[in-house]
Formats: sequence, structure tokens, C-alpha cells
Amino acid sequence: MRVLILGGDGYLGWPTAMRFSAKGHEVSVVDNFSRRRWHEAQGTDSLTPIRPLEDRVAAWKKVSGMGIAHYVGDIEDGEFLEQTVIDTRPEAIVHYGEQPSAPYSMQSRETAVETQYTNVIGTLNLLFAMRDHVPDTHLVKLGTMGEYGTPNIDIEEGYIEIEHNGRRDTLPFPKLPGSLYHLSKVHDSHNIHFGCRVWGLRATDLNQGVVYGIETDETALDERLCTRFDYDEVFGTVLNRFCVQALIGRPLTVYGKGGQTRGFLNIRDTLQCVELAVANPADRGEFRVFNQFTEQFSVSELAELVRESAAEVGYEVHVEHLENPRVELEEHYYNAVHTKLLDLGLEPTLLGDELVKSVISMVERHRDRIDASHIEPHTTWKSGREAETPVS
Amino acid sequence: MRVLILGGDGYLGWPTAMRFSAKGHEVSVVDNFSRRRWHEAQGTDSLTPIRPLEDRVAAWKKVSGMGIAHYVGDIEDGEFLEQTVIDTRPEAIVHYGEQPSAPYSMQSRETAVETQYTNVIGTLNLLFAMRDHVPDTHLVKLGTMGEYGTPNIDIEEGYIEIEHNGRRDTLPFPKLPGSLYHLSKVHDSHNIHFGCRVWGLRATDLNQGVVYGIETDETALDERLCTRFDYDEVFGTVLNRFCVQALIGRPLTVYGKGGQTRGFLNIRDTLQCVELAVANPADRGEFRVFNQFTEQFSVSELAELVRESAAEVGYEVHVEHLENPRVELEEHYYNAVHTKLLDLGLEPTLLGDELVKSVISMVERHRDRIDASHIEPHTTWKSGREAETPVS
Repeated sequence: MRVLILGGDGYLGWPTAMRFSAKGHEVSVVDNFSRRRWHEAQGTDSLTPIRPLEDRVAAWKKVSGMGIAHYVGDIEDGEFLEQTVIDTRPEAIVHYGEQPSAPYSMQSRETAVETQYTNVIGTLNLLFAMRDHVPDTHLVKLGTMGEYGTPNIDIEEGYIEIEHNGRRDTLPFPKLPGSLYHLSKVHDSHNIHFGCRVWGLRATDLNQGVVYGIETDETALDERLCTRFDYDEVFGTVLNRFCVQALIGRPLTVYGKGGQTRGFLNIRDTLQCVELAVANPADRGEFRVFNQFTEQFSVSELAELVRESAAEVGYEVHVEHLENPRVELEEHYYNAVHTKLLDLGLEPTLLGDELVKSVISMVERHRDRIDASHIEPHTTWKSGREAETPVS
Repeated sequence: MRVLILGGDGYLGWPTAMRFSAKGHEVSVVDNFSRRRWHEAQGTDSLTPIRPLEDRVAAWKKVSGMGIAHYVGDIEDGEFLEQTVIDTRPEAIVHYGEQPSAPYSMQSRETAVETQYTNVIGTLNLLFAMRDHVPDTHLVKLGTMGEYGTPNIDIEEGYIEIEHNGRRDTLPFPKLPGSLYHLSKVHDSHNIHFGCRVWGLRATDLNQGVVYGIETDETALDERLCTRFDYDEVFGTVLNRFCVQALIGRPLTVYGKGGQTRGFLNIRDTLQCVELAVANPADRGEFRVFNQFTEQFSVSELAELVRESAAEVGYEVHVEHLENPRVELEEHYYNAVHTKLLDLGLEPTLLGDELVKSVISMVERHRDRIDASHIEPHTTWKSGREAETPVS
């Protein structure tokens, strides 16, 4: 199958590209290296050294014998994207090509506008390219569980049947997202749904939880094939941050009370889910939503897991509660349905101390690359980026 | 009160500016004349001759003795908008400054991107300017009833209480809008709601129906003060189109079956509603949604009203059903709550044959300016703009 991966140089995009290539698909990736540039601008970097895309592709060719075509450009550039779709004639498009950080979107008006522009206009360009050139192609779009926010009712997979004044309809699940980044994904979801309703496109919106882990069958083959491990306050995720903090003897910084509960999944399961979605496409005109995570944890539960796992390998750390830089409920009901991917065959890789210890061991190997100055939060939801001192 | 009106050169913006000025408020308007430029690009124009903004402001000064400050620029330019907010220190902001046409948004990738960029980024810039400089200011944003689409349940005013699996929450009413323009307004609503939730801004989202009529107390004072009457397929609305068609002896063109039902209101009621919203501001942190229309009609009902009214003044026309260029339900349930503005004191001006006959009489006066070539639809929802022949 011809598979086009937008954001194919990223944390998930690159492992996804290798996975489809390993399975014998004809893979093309598109990237504009914005993640690399955003890191440079913030003075941060992945803990794992990331090779230039050309080197990654060459290493993959050497290791696997398979080629991956790469296109460098902005999906916000409608003509570039259209031409890429014409050139590659994909049968499936996996779309990771967005600004992925909530704190980044909250730093300033400029970063907020950049986030919504990049994400919304890029996807809009993609929908037109699909309508005009490959209307039968299946779009697999990475959304986020954060689109839903934390409602006081069970979260369903994309839609909810509402009975109201004696009548019924099944409508999109109402969204109350928690950042301007998450809002950009809500806008995307609405636009893609429209493309399915009006143009008969087929799409699967993967409302993904927080991904952890960096090892997949393919990244493990050669260190030049590794993927990103971001642990800074802007692009890093909470488990990564805790593991680095444990290793350098800093307290594990929980924002506020720590009762914030979210869905999580291993990077291996992200690849499984995307493969399952591609192998079982949506129908023409169908906008399908899968909640893509395997387990729910509160931030305090994660901190405790890391604290215990770190202690087992000799790192004694404690947990510290910071003033929450975000505006969010710190204690709330959270129960999100996530059965559709299980029904398609997803076999979850659950989080436990072995995974945490393997991450800590990986962090140890790259200990000399740790920059401790960008771990604690400098971006607040109320007033944006404070360059000088952390909010703690 | 200091009132800033975005889109103050437009169909509703200009009459709104005069109304607030007439009531003694300190009014500033912002416009980039995009509506005038879009008309030029399409080869269309308002039936009523529209003076340059400077002439309008000078005529208003002469007629009323009151000044209206005007700022020319793009609200998509964040620095320009921020400086305008700093200069004018508004206590209320009435935001009409958006691309308002559904067909325009569906013509091409370029017009779709322009619509979502203009509308979403303009409003996002505004939210940041408010947060940073006038956080207590009340934003009165013009949304549209079209954001809701046509669900099979009653449409509430912005929110719906949902009971699900034994738990309850009040959440944003789910939206299924019918064009990329309407989607841009949904995106706006979500972003503004976020600004209220996270930054404590205060906002009223006026989900407005289709507005008809061009006469207000102020436009009637002097012909130089008149507002737009658009009747072309892109910027015109259905009642205007029917009145022009009646006058030139063309059939009244109903798209599809004509059972499409929408909310409507007179321009005089738009001004009443905006005045009521400004006089009764939302609380800090509150995102308030009012459904702003006074009556529901199907397209066929409107066609029949115009046919009968035109016959009374000597124009015999018939109704013709065209293949629908839009993708929409042509027969559907529609019942939208609209009590909040009535509760604040709105006194509806209802639609009847007298209004239609007065519009036809106005069209007669400008008969020599009618361009019959841009009335029937050249833009389809499925494939965009067809320049050559109408879809009929």
C-alpha cells in the first residue's frame, strides 16, 4: 500500500514510517523540521541524539533494505502539499504534521497563532488535496484525548446519543479542551468531519492519550534509527520529565494537587493502533473516532510509580507539588471509553516498573546531554511565557 | 461608553456604529474594506451605492453632529489590532470583522483558507489584546445560527444539559455546521469560550439568524448613510435575491426542495439585540450564548411570501426549484430556543408583506444597478466554483 506520513520526522512519525516500511508498504514522509526548529528556538533538545532525516532514511535503507521517500516542505503551503499528494498518490495518509505542545501554544499571541495556523490550515489544505486528487484515500489523523477536556460524564468515542425533550440524535461529543493547542485539534476534527459529510472523504480521528516510551521493533535495530525523548517543559511529557528528574536527584514536580487524570499508552501501542486503523479503513463519507489509549493514570500515580521504580535502581527522590501553571481541574471525574481499537485487535502494552526502569537506564546512558534548566515550567496558562524564573 | 466595532464598514457594522454614536457613546470602527474588495474580485456590488467610509463618517458628522473614529487595517495583523485596542480602550467590543459568506468559503482551497484564517486568527488576536490590555471589556461577537446545523433535537442557547450513564453535565451544544465559513464561526466560539474559562474574559456570542432589511433609524436619515444590499449568489441572502428576481421577472430560485428552515430577523432587531447585549454585559469568566433571531421560515415559505407580495405590487413571478448547490438536508426538524434576548427586552419586528413590498420598492429605485448575471449559483459545495454556467 502507498502510505504518506505527514510529520514523518517526528517522535511518532519516524517510527511509524519505519513500521509501515518494514511491513513492505511504499512509504513517503513529509516534514518541514519545525519540531527541530522550535527546539532550537527554545534552547532545548531531545535527550536522544536525532540524526538528520536524510541520515535516518539512509540508515534505514542499510538496516532494512527498504527505501523511504522524503519531501521537505510546509503543509500550510497548499500548493506544495497538493503536489506531494499528486506525486505520491497515497492510499492511506497518516497525519502527525502539527505543532504538538500545549505549553508552546500558551506562551504568547505569536505561538498561539502559529499553532492554530499550522494545525488548522495544514489540515484544511490536506482535505482539499484529498477531495481533488485522491478522494478514496483513508485519512488517519492524530487527534488527542485532550480535546474532550474533563467532563463530568463518561467520555464516548467521538459521538454521543442525546435524548432531549422527547427527541433523539447522535451528535459529536461536546468538547471543552484545555489549551489553544488542544483547541486547534478540535477545529481540525470539525473540519475533517465536514470533509467526510460533504465530500465523502473517509477519515479516522485517533484521539490519542499521552504517549510514553521510545523503543519500537525498528528503533531498536540501530541507534541511528532512534526517536525523540523530549523532557523539557514545552515539548516533554510528564513521564519523561519525572524519569530525568529522578536521575538527577531533583524532586518529581507535580503540577497542583496531581489528581489530573489522563489516558496513556506506550509508543508500541501507538504503532499498533495506527496499523489497525490503516488496515481497517473508514467507509466513504465516514468520520470515525477512536479513543487511543490503554490505561488511565493521575499525575500523582505516575509520580509514585516513578519514585518507586527509581528507588529500586538506587535513586531516592521525593515528589514536590508546584503551583499549577495550567488552568485545569486538579480533582475530577474521568472515565473515557476506549473499546474500538481493542475490538480491532489492539493488544495493550501496560505501564509498569520495568518500563520505567528501562527509561531511567536509557536516560543514564545520555546523562551528559541532560539540560536541567528547562525542566520546570516557565509558561503559565494565565499570562504566557515568563523567561526569568520558574513559577515555583 | 467607549465602543469599538470591528467590521464597522459592513452591512451591520456601519448601522451599529451609527446607533451607538446616536445614543451618545464614543464609537471607533475598524475595517480593512475586505468586503468591498471581495465584491470587486467577484465582479459584484451592493445594489445600494455605498460611499467610502470617510464620506460616511463625514455625512454622519454633518447629520448627527457626532464623530466616529475609524481605523483601517487587518485584525489578522495582531500588532495593528493590539495597538488599536490600546488606543481606543474600549469598554465594549462588537465584533463583525469576519468573512461572512458560506458560498465564498466553498469556492476553492484558497477562499476556504482565507475564510478560516481571517476569522479564526482575527478573533484569536482579539482575545490576546483583550487579555493583555482590557481584560474587563465585554466582547459581543457575532456568530451564526448556522453553527448548530440542523440536529434532530431542539437547539438550545449555546449549552445543553446531558444526562449520560447516570451522571450529568452542562456542556457546549454539539455543532454540525454546513460550510467552511460556518465552521470558522464554530472555531471562534470554542476559542472565545476558552478565553473566558482560562483568562476570565467576558463574552456574549450572538448566534444570529439570517438578517433582512436595510433600513434603521439612522440609515433613513440621509442616503449617504445607507447600508449594503447584497443580492448576488455569494454575499447576498435569500430574501434579497428573491426580491431582485421578482422585480426583473425571473423565477424565484429555491435550492432543492425548499424545506430548509432557518431563523430570520430584521436588521432593526440586530441593532436592538446588540444594544441589549452591550447594556447587559456577561460576567467576568462568562461565555454567554444568545440565539439571535425572531422567526423561523423555510425557504419555500419565504419564496411564497415574496411571490404574493410582489403580485400585490404588480410583479407576477413563479417559484423554480434548482438543483441544490449546497449539501444540506432539505426537509428536517428545526426548533431553536431564542428566549434570552426576549427576556432582556427585545421587541421583535416581524416579517410581512409590507416589509417585502418596501424592499421591492427600494430595488425599483436602484433598478439600473441590477446585475442579473451573478444571482444564480455558480458555487457548489461538492466541487467549488464553476465559472462558466450556473448549476441549474
